Amino acid sequence: MTTTAVLLIDCPDRKGLVAAIANFLVHEYDANVLNADQHQDAALGLFFMRVEFATDRSCDDASFRAAFAPLAAALNLHWTFTLQSKPLKVAIFVSHYLHCLADLLHRHQTGELPCTLSLIISNHESARPLSEFYGIPFHFTPVTPATKEAVEAHHLDLLAANNIDLIVLARYMQILSSRFVQAYPLKIINVHHSFLPAFTGAKPYHAAFARGVKLIGATSHYVTAELDEGPIIEQDVTRVSQSDQLPHLIQKGRDLERLVLSRAVRWHLAHRILSYANKTVIFS
Amino acid sequence: MTTTAVLLIDCPDRKGLVAAIANFLVHEYDANVLNADQHQDAALGLFFMRVEFATDRSCDDASFRAAFAPLAAALNLHWTFTLQSKPLKVAIFVSHYLHCLADLLHRHQTGELPCTLSLIISNHESARPLSEFYGIPFHFTPVTPATKEAVEAHHLDLLAANNIDLIVLARYMQILSSRFVQAYPLKIINVHHSFLPAFTGAKPYHAAFARGVKLIGATSHYVTAELDEGPIIEQDVTRVSQSDQLPHLIQKGRDLERLVLSRAVRWHLAHRILSYANKTVIFS
Amino acid sequence: MTTTAVLLIDCPDRKGLVAAIANFLVHEYDANVLNADQHQDAALGLFFMRVEFATDRSCDDASFRAAFAPLAAALNLHWTFTLQSKPLKVAIFVSHYLHCLADLLHRHQTGELPCTLSLIISNHESARPLSEFYGIPFHFTPVTPATKEAVEAHHLDLLAANNIDLIVLARYMQILSSRFVQAYPLKIINVHHSFLPAFTGAKPYHAAFARGVKLIGATSHYVTAELDEGPIIEQDVTRVSQSDQLPHLIQKGRDLERLVLSRAVRWHLAHRILSYANKTVIFS
Amino acid sequence: MTTTAVLLIDCPDRKGLVAAIANFLVHEYDANVLNADQHQDAALGLFFMRVEFATDRSCDDASFRAAFAPLAAALNLHWTFTLQSKPLKVAIFVSHYLHCLADLLHRHQTGELPCTLSLIISNHESARPLSEFYGIPFHFTPVTPATKEAVEAHHLDLLAANNIDLIVLARYMQILSSRFVQAYPLKIINVHHSFLPAFTGAKPYHAAFARGVKLIGATSHYVTAELDEGPIIEQDVTRVSQSDQLPHLIQKGRDLERLVLSRAVRWHLAHRILSYANKTVIFS
Repeated sequence: MTTTAVLLIDCPDRKGLVAAIANFLVHEYDANVLNADQHQDAALGLFFMRVEFATDRSCDDASFRAAFAPLAAALNLHWTFTLQSKPLKVAIFVSHYLHCLADLLHRHQTGELPCTLSLIISNHESARPLSEFYGIPFHFTPVTPATKEAVEAHHLDLLAANNIDLIVLARYMQILSSRFVQAYPLKIINVHHSFLPAFTGAKPYHAAFARGVKLIGATSHYVTAELDEGPIIEQDVTRVSQSDQLPHLIQKGRDLERLVLSRAVRWHLAHRILSYANKTVIFS
Repeated sequence: MTTTAVLLIDCPDRKGLVAAIANFLVHEYDANVLNADQHQDAALGLFFMRVEFATDRSCDDASFRAAFAPLAAALNLHWTFTLQSKPLKVAIFVSHYLHCLADLLHRHQTGELPCTLSLIISNHESARPLSEFYGIPFHFTPVTPATKEAVEAHHLDLLAANNIDLIVLARYMQILSSRFVQAYPLKIINVHHSFLPAFTGAKPYHAAFARGVKLIGATSHYVTAELDEGPIIEQDVTRVSQSDQLPHLIQKGRDLERLVLSRAVRWHLAHRILSYANKTVIFS
Repeated sequence: MTTTAVLLIDCPDRKGLVAAIANFLVHEYDANVLNADQHQDAALGLFFMRVEFATDRSCDDASFRAAFAPLAAALNLHWTFTLQSKPLKVAIFVSHYLHCLADLLHRHQTGELPCTLSLIISNHESARPLSEFYGIPFHFTPVTPATKEAVEAHHLDLLAANNIDLIVLARYMQILSSRFVQAYPLKIINVHHSFLPAFTGAKPYHAAFARGVKLIGATSHYVTAELDEGPIIEQDVTRVSQSDQLPHLIQKGRDLERLVLSRAVRWHLAHRILSYANKTVIFS
Repeated sequence: MTTTAVLLIDCPDRKGLVAAIANFLVHEYDANVLNADQHQDAALGLFFMRVEFATDRSCDDASFRAAFAPLAAALNLHWTFTLQSKPLKVAIFVSHYLHCLADLLHRHQTGELPCTLSLIISNHESARPLSEFYGIPFHFTPVTPATKEAVEAHHLDLLAANNIDLIVLARYMQILSSRFVQAYPLKIINVHHSFLPAFTGAKPYHAAFARGVKLIGATSHYVTAELDEGPIIEQDVTRVSQSDQLPHLIQKGRDLERLVLSRAVRWHLAHRILSYANKTVIFS
């Protein structure tokens, strides 16, 4: 039986990295490289690589790790390894705007987002019908200032109990605590409804309208402790004119939000994103 | 002989404005409306209109003003009137990056920018050969902190002596004094090499590179006393990836700068821009 | 009570049209013009106008028609009038690709597509769950070459019985007969999965992949008797590269199809589209 | 002294190609890989690679070829090797529209197009002043049906005498004979003023205007014997509306033509393009 897997590597750049890694995979591990892509940041002296390979060997997490560890140690590699037979487990957080959720659920159903959608968490009941229609467990957890800390602890329990690998904030209108964020480093994807770094914070469409911009945007990014400051994964924009009043900006923006969030999730699920220096490398 | 002209109007919105203005032009002034476009800002209760018309009457500035004044006063209109036979007089300011200048000069030569290019002013000599090739008077006026005020006074004299209607800052790397800016309200167009309001100030490409954005932009805007805060006329963006290092951002950005600056100048020359509330209305 | 309505006019261009129409609305009909937009095709000598107005009069279809008819006849206007209180009745046709349907249903639910969704017709059962979830009557009408004519007659009965104003082909994979098309002139909107006129006919993504284009597109258009030749309403494109194999083109294209189809439907519902000379005028 | 070079490889895909090539470069040739990028066409079983490397060895064309030949033969590689110290020699053909020429000349002057611009050939005199301003030899060679064959022979002599590596057709309005095209396979870049394969042949803007498209495009491609059918290198589009009459399409299109042609030339000069199956692979 053929196993396919993805190896993501980042490390200080040095001569011979590609040759050494390719040699290991092909000659020692008898793998067939399906796709390989590298990136170098010359200024910072860093090397990034994504390799997708297939092998007829019995290959599991433990056995690959054991085989690869000596070379990785010798070359000082930072790396992750994922079998494609193990889909990631994903939780979606949402509030009362459901357009991103509806979009993600439909894409998941059609196979565009290969993952296990384990749970949907919301501080509103409005997402329940959609969740149930698509057969995803729905957790209604209202939040007040007084209960916020307890609710977040409950969320962390839910996530842990479901072995969640990735959290998607699909227009979730609550700010996560830094404790929460630090529990899932580079594992929380948010969509912000502006072209970051313009219009951080609340009501970005109102701010864009007031400034009179000629393009509005949306941004998907990993969540870090600093609000709206995490590594940007994807951005897109669309043109607006004087005939677009605030409601039109909001409506046009919804299309952008769906696009940039779904792309970010798809790339994350395919292990196409590496992050460093508060930026991302996207292997296409 | 047929005369064509453009009437630009902004005023508080009220019932019957279009009818009243159209009636005047068609029935009293015997004009043929070639193009009419309106915009209303419902929130602010404002009305904007651009009418392009032709007439076989002897029509000059003074006679139209005399004819239109009573209606304009009755309706409380703020308006400008321009005969298309009178091309605007334009001055270009430039420093050592010449891509926008070369672009504007070529577009002017091919008839895309119908205006009188009266002078090119620079604090460097590098723009002289291009200026001379295209036959535009070139003024080299070096600037130091000590001479800045005197040089600006000299610029104002030059502009006044040439009856300049529009100043184009084609990557001019000096900050204009507020005295200068106030002498030419909504008559100075600048290009800023970022997607405003992101990355105001110096070195926007460096800042964009550091932030890891996935699109870079450029913005043309009217210059006001607040740096990079004037009404935005046009913006455009292009995609970048990890393979684009800083020099690539700068190179890709040059294409955007040319596009957004030349569009702004073309629209201004065609009297297609109205500005209010620090925004612009673009009549297409 | 205030009534709002849209008046769409196309006619041979002549002097004084705007003044005459504005005078009628403001002075005779006591209306408040909310929005007015004109377009002239100088080459063909045609005039197009969209006026959105409000009135406190008792205004219904019959009374407006009676009031406007004399002027319309005098000026040789071709016109349509629609009260905004009367949402259009819409039927969606779909086959087994459900992404456009899911998108339209969600947009309808959130109020972005103000219309009455009367029925969904499909030659497959796969759209039934979504239709039922959103509460729209679903008609499963399988088609074989032998039954095609009878099925189409049944469709026409269904549409007539429901007084359908607009038919949306949301990736409906059957070719409509010219009899069917002629029964709904400029009332059938299709989405074609290419940048028309490139790649007409079947399997446009395969053709685009084979040709090696660097952008793929999608087009929404009114259906006429000639396949893929009707007036184009909207188009959009997205970039592809060598790393995009055929399945990626199809997946990226789905996003474009959703966007261009939903925009076309939204504009049609808002009476923003006029068609002439096999083109469209879109009033924004 | 460090030498940098680019190796472009295409061949049937097989296991171990990356490892073998990397091993040769790093271990046998003592090179430092600056950039490596691969692409596989799974359907056709083909492998493509671009490697940019630096070496402190004395490395010239002959010595590298001798060193690499055994491996290349063993692996059945089709390859090209270029020292970056040897800029390509380029000829530009142009007719009376000069916007692409002016753009290429300015980009060349600023260093964006690192090559030797050896000659400019035109069937009109209008390009002479620009050519002389930028110091590029200009050859005026008028063409009539009677002289076409002789003129082309003269062109081939000029190109051969100047050892031209790349021919850029910057809106050259003459159709090249197949004899001419075959003399420079994948070495002639043309810009076509439409989004190919839509609107092949003459007057594409007229055809786009007549069809009522909502986006217009431009395409740069390698020239093959079939007119407008060669491998596409780059395409771009911009939005048009009913307010854009034919002259506006032509004007907006010029901006696209400049962009797609200059990108194609830049990529060709950097050895970033491989062509197969009438498509291109662009290494970014």
